[in-house]
Amino acid sequence: MYQKYDVHYEIDDLDRAILNILIKDAKTPYTEIASQLIVSPGTIHVRMKKLESLGIVTKSTLIVDPVKLGYDMTAFLGVYLEHGSDYEQVVEELKDIPEVVEAYFTTGEYSIFLKIHCRNTQHLYDLLNHKIQSIKTVVRTDTLISLAESIKRQIKV
Amino acid sequence: MYQKYDVHYEIDDLDRAILNILIKDAKTPYTEIASQLIVSPGTIHVRMKKLESLGIVTKSTLIVDPVKLGYDMTAFLGVYLEHGSDYEQVVEELKDIPEVVEAYFTTGEYSIFLKIHCRNTQHLYDLLNHKIQSIKTVVRTDTLISLAESIKRQIKV
Amino acid sequence: MYQKYDVHYEIDDLDRAILNILIKDAKTPYTEIASQLIVSPGTIHVRMKKLESLGIVTKSTLIVDPVKLGYDMTAFLGVYLEHGSDYEQVVEELKDIPEVVEAYFTTGEYSIFLKIHCRNTQHLYDLLNHKIQSIKTVVRTDTLISLAESIKRQIKV
Amino acid sequence: MYQKYDVHYEIDDLDRAILNILIKDAKTPYTEIASQLIVSPGTIHVRMKKLESLGIVTKSTLIVDPVKLGYDMTAFLGVYLEHGSDYEQVVEELKDIPEVVEAYFTTGEYSIFLKIHCRNTQHLYDLLNHKIQSIKTVVRTDTLISLAESIKRQIKV
Amino acid sequence: MYQKYDVHYEIDDLDRAILNILIKDAKTPYTEIASQLIVSPGTIHVRMKKLESLGIVTKSTLIVDPVKLGYDMTAFLGVYLEHGSDYEQVVEELKDIPEVVEAYFTTGEYSIFLKIHCRNTQHLYDLLNHKIQSIKTVVRTDTLISLAESIKRQIKV
Amino acid sequence: MYQKYDVHYEIDDLDRAILNILIKDAKTPYTEIASQLIVSPGTIHVRMKKLESLGIVTKSTLIVDPVKLGYDMTAFLGVYLEHGSDYEQVVEELKDIPEVVEAYFTTGEYSIFLKIHCRNTQHLYDLLNHKIQSIKTVVRTDTLISLAESIKRQIKV
Amino acid sequence: MYQKYDVHYEIDDLDRAILNILIKDAKTPYTEIASQLIVSPGTIHVRMKKLESLGIVTKSTLIVDPVKLGYDMTAFLGVYLEHGSDYEQVVEELKDIPEVVEAYFTTGEYSIFLKIHCRNTQHLYDLLNHKIQSIKTVVRTDTLISLAESIKRQIKV
Amino acid sequence: MYQKYDVHYEIDDLDRAILNILIKDAKTPYTEIASQLIVSPGTIHVRMKKLESLGIVTKSTLIVDPVKLGYDMTAFLGVYLEHGSDYEQVVEELKDIPEVVEAYFTTGEYSIFLKIHCRNTQHLYDLLNHKIQSIKTVVRTDTLISLAESIKRQIKV
Repeated sequence: MYQKYDVHYEIDDLDRAILNILIKDAKTPYTEIASQLIVSPGTIHVRMKKLESLGIVTKSTLIVDPVKLGYDMTAFLGVYLEHGSDYEQVVEELKDIPEVVEAYFTTGEYSIFLKIHCRNTQHLYDLLNHKIQSIKTVVRTDTLISLAESIKRQIKV
Repeated sequence: MYQKYDVHYEIDDLDRAILNILIKDAKTPYTEIASQLIVSPGTIHVRMKKLESLGIVTKSTLIVDPVKLGYDMTAFLGVYLEHGSDYEQVVEELKDIPEVVEAYFTTGEYSIFLKIHCRNTQHLYDLLNHKIQSIKTVVRTDTLISLAESIKRQIKV
Repeated sequence: MYQKYDVHYEIDDLDRAILNILIKDAKTPYTEIASQLIVSPGTIHVRMKKLESLGIVTKSTLIVDPVKLGYDMTAFLGVYLEHGSDYEQVVEELKDIPEVVEAYFTTGEYSIFLKIHCRNTQHLYDLLNHKIQSIKTVVRTDTLISLAESIKRQIKV
Repeated sequence: MYQKYDVHYEIDDLDRAILNILIKDAKTPYTEIASQLIVSPGTIHVRMKKLESLGIVTKSTLIVDPVKLGYDMTAFLGVYLEHGSDYEQVVEELKDIPEVVEAYFTTGEYSIFLKIHCRNTQHLYDLLNHKIQSIKTVVRTDTLISLAESIKRQIKV
Repeated sequence: MYQKYDVHYEIDDLDRAILNILIKDAKTPYTEIASQLIVSPGTIHVRMKKLESLGIVTKSTLIVDPVKLGYDMTAFLGVYLEHGSDYEQVVEELKDIPEVVEAYFTTGEYSIFLKIHCRNTQHLYDLLNHKIQSIKTVVRTDTLISLAESIKRQIKV
Repeated sequence: MYQKYDVHYEIDDLDRAILNILIKDAKTPYTEIASQLIVSPGTIHVRMKKLESLGIVTKSTLIVDPVKLGYDMTAFLGVYLEHGSDYEQVVEELKDIPEVVEAYFTTGEYSIFLKIHCRNTQHLYDLLNHKIQSIKTVVRTDTLISLAESIKRQIKV
Repeated sequence: MYQKYDVHYEIDDLDRAILNILIKDAKTPYTEIASQLIVSPGTIHVRMKKLESLGIVTKSTLIVDPVKLGYDMTAFLGVYLEHGSDYEQVVEELKDIPEVVEAYFTTGEYSIFLKIHCRNTQHLYDLLNHKIQSIKTVVRTDTLISLAESIKRQIKV
Repeated sequence: MYQKYDVHYEIDDLDRAILNILIKDAKTPYTEIASQLIVSPGTIHVRMKKLESLGIVTKSTLIVDPVKLGYDMTAFLGVYLEHGSDYEQVVEELKDIPEVVEAYFTTGEYSIFLKIHCRNTQHLYDLLNHKIQSIKTVVRTDTLISLAESIKRQIKV
């Protein structure tokens, strides 16, 4: 009889402080972080290396505003498949539709749950009727359109 | 009789190429981008300044993996309020709950639609019963737990 | 023991022909209708008088395209009230909201069923959250947004 | 980088006044409108030409009361298809059913959303069972019968 | 242009009085009814002949208590068919299942709506799984079991 | 330790034959039944006395056709109460509404399940909005209108 | 005409007392039960023999805590089949999936209702997508995850 | 930065063999288990002590057949509360209702999910209407009655 462990990482206050600075602006120089937190730049470097090697930090990225590029509508889609077991194969086809930005296998009655961006109601019609509902095993979709995005943030580290 | 314009920005291929490099890694130096795209670093600088000033680029950020920090569960929550008109006031209270990472006003029957991260079923129980359902005007919640996240990306620029 | 009659009117082929011409263009002169149908203009006049006096013809109107005036979105709203019996009073308040173009008392689970026009998602948010859901007895709304209008006509006479 | 415009038209108070008179009665002579609004008949003519050429005014029509012709029932129908992608083909078949007066592609769980007029419950049974459900790809329909029409108007110009 | 009449019958107070006595006990002799209502037995006879010939009275019957014969459970069943258009054919098959006492084509999402009597949960399982769900085009059923019957009467004449 | 019995009655073939004749026509004379079944009239009398005393036969009644009296619509109503526990009190109020012909406490999400008869859509509107929804604890109703009644019979004895 | 009995057993206070002691701890020696209840051990033996021979007591078992073995999640699953009549055949396939601990044929819209235990969200995904939804006739599943188990006991004897 | 462990226990084949024998019959003597598994009785004793001290084995119990005691119906109940946050307080009240054998806080739209046993439809009516719906904050209940229990077992160790 032995014990089995699921490993999670607990980070300390310094890790947290570094991450919070870089979540605000990923391009903050380590020297600036170091002087803010009153530690040596080397410490920042060591901590970040560890956070990256453990997979806690996955990448730095640029956030683009979809609305400014004309993507005025965000919607959540519940997708019904002929057979829920086709999930993985349908996800492959969805990856080729650029308007699909998130896809989940969820509890509840949907076979797939999607987040999409589109330009306007005409674009959403084309996307639903000609792209998503045209995938062979898709029976129908249930659409929740977001009319206001009031919170959008990363989990607090 | 005059015309009214809703302004969206169309970006060109060079803008697109720059953004795609920085979306993959926000810390790529402009000199490296310039040499990849065979333009001068000054051009990169000018373009980025314009994309930032138009609000197309909002910020650079560090992406942290919630699973590695022990947030094993992602869930979508449909929240029913006593009166849908309490939406904005309830959103203010939700902002103080760190596990709530997204909040939307959506079509469909929910008053609020949330995305949350939590550690496990016990944590989700506490979050639902003691934090979210304890907000005065919240009647009940309908929870979709994500069992697999198969697509997670920004809109293609 | 006597019989009770519900009165409906059956119109003849000439009535039908006249109505169909005027449904296409309400401003067609009676002389033109008469020459098309090879009857005297007086006959057209008599028939139209009868159709108007029986209430079969209610009015002639100008059809305006809401999309061209910026009303890009059409939606159907199922409204839930605290008590279904408040229907008539809530309808009075809805009459003051110009975006509401149709209101029905329907079977099914909604207390009121509405058709609305609005400019965009931001306008729909304001309409739902600040105008309709702010009516005292309204609990919540369920919104079906029309992404394409494929048939729109009067009943064939 | 260039700007893209969605064009909507904003009309002025005189346009609005003209339209509102003609929406009440499409046959009001321009001279009468001109004298009401204290402008020259030529101005009315110029304004109407422009409103028509921009597509803001689509046509003038006669409004017929379906109830007086025996169409006592109005209903909304949610139609479920075997595959939502058959929408456009099914709409073509629905165009041949005169009782169908409106058809929409909507968000929510229906593949098609219809408005119909019919004479009575027996007529509605025939329409649903023998005409609409007999279209090959139609699985089932969900019917909301209107028991009272409390608001029915055009969008305020 | 002619008027079309749907014929309904309005009965007078004497008709009503006669019917109410016979609804309470169909075997009440006409002489007894006559003496109660202070008219001649011939009048009762004439009135009943007319009510029968107009189809207002359809038959006299014996009411048997299903519970006393062991039919402890009454249930309402919403039946989903592969295609709603199979309604009439499925009803023919349902007529051969004696536990089915009522069948309707209804608005709402069911293809057929049934009332059944059965002896107990085991009997209901057999009825649902082996008889009703075994009909070829039946997809699934949704069952409402009656736990108490609080009103059961004919429409007041 | 003792056994507890739930008593049901099993009737024999002669009982069944007698009941089936009287279900078809409750006024068939016992002498006619006796000669059809080749038993003595006394036997019929004895059997019927027993069936009545055991409560198997509850009464004989006249069946009236609601449609011929102008009740063109039959509907099933799911009623939602503020608190399901108000069922018995609301049933008392429903007994005073003559259009309500059946009322049940059912499993599923409704607090009360009703069968009603009414004359037309206007009558149904009045009944729902002014009578049933006006009962204090009624929140809303969900209506299934019967468009065709295809089976209507007693349980086979 | 004869009476038909459904046999249930009523047990007395001594039976109840014995059962309640053994439900708490199935290994309590009969001598200890006897001394607690102030009867002879033989009486306990006789009573238990009778309770076993009547099938009231089915077995004694060891209760194992699924959470301690890593089964952190309990869920209820509503399963939709292509045809509800496949219930019995699908149950045979479900018996080979050890995570399925209960299976029911229920009223309501599900074809099968299951209780399952699994280790975490990844395990639940595998179970749903690769095992249960992969059964040929399963269309989709609706999952209720238990976040807290607040009552878990046998029926009071 | 340190690692956090969630502890689960993995048991070996001998533990599994012992548990499976005792799950079949909790009263099997350790000597018999030992001879079946060809180990010493002391080993059985040691292993069981460990399994008990780790909380893997919680107790041995007697399984009673509810049907034989007259509990013919098993049902699952989804309970809606006025406010989901009243869950814990309502569970306390439910503990006093002996027919309630399981209670869960689940995802999905119910505030509480229950399993109950009852004698028949009359008993279920009393339980729902007079006991469960009479709890102050309970709005309504949605009942799934089990018509067949096809799998009922513990998780495989």
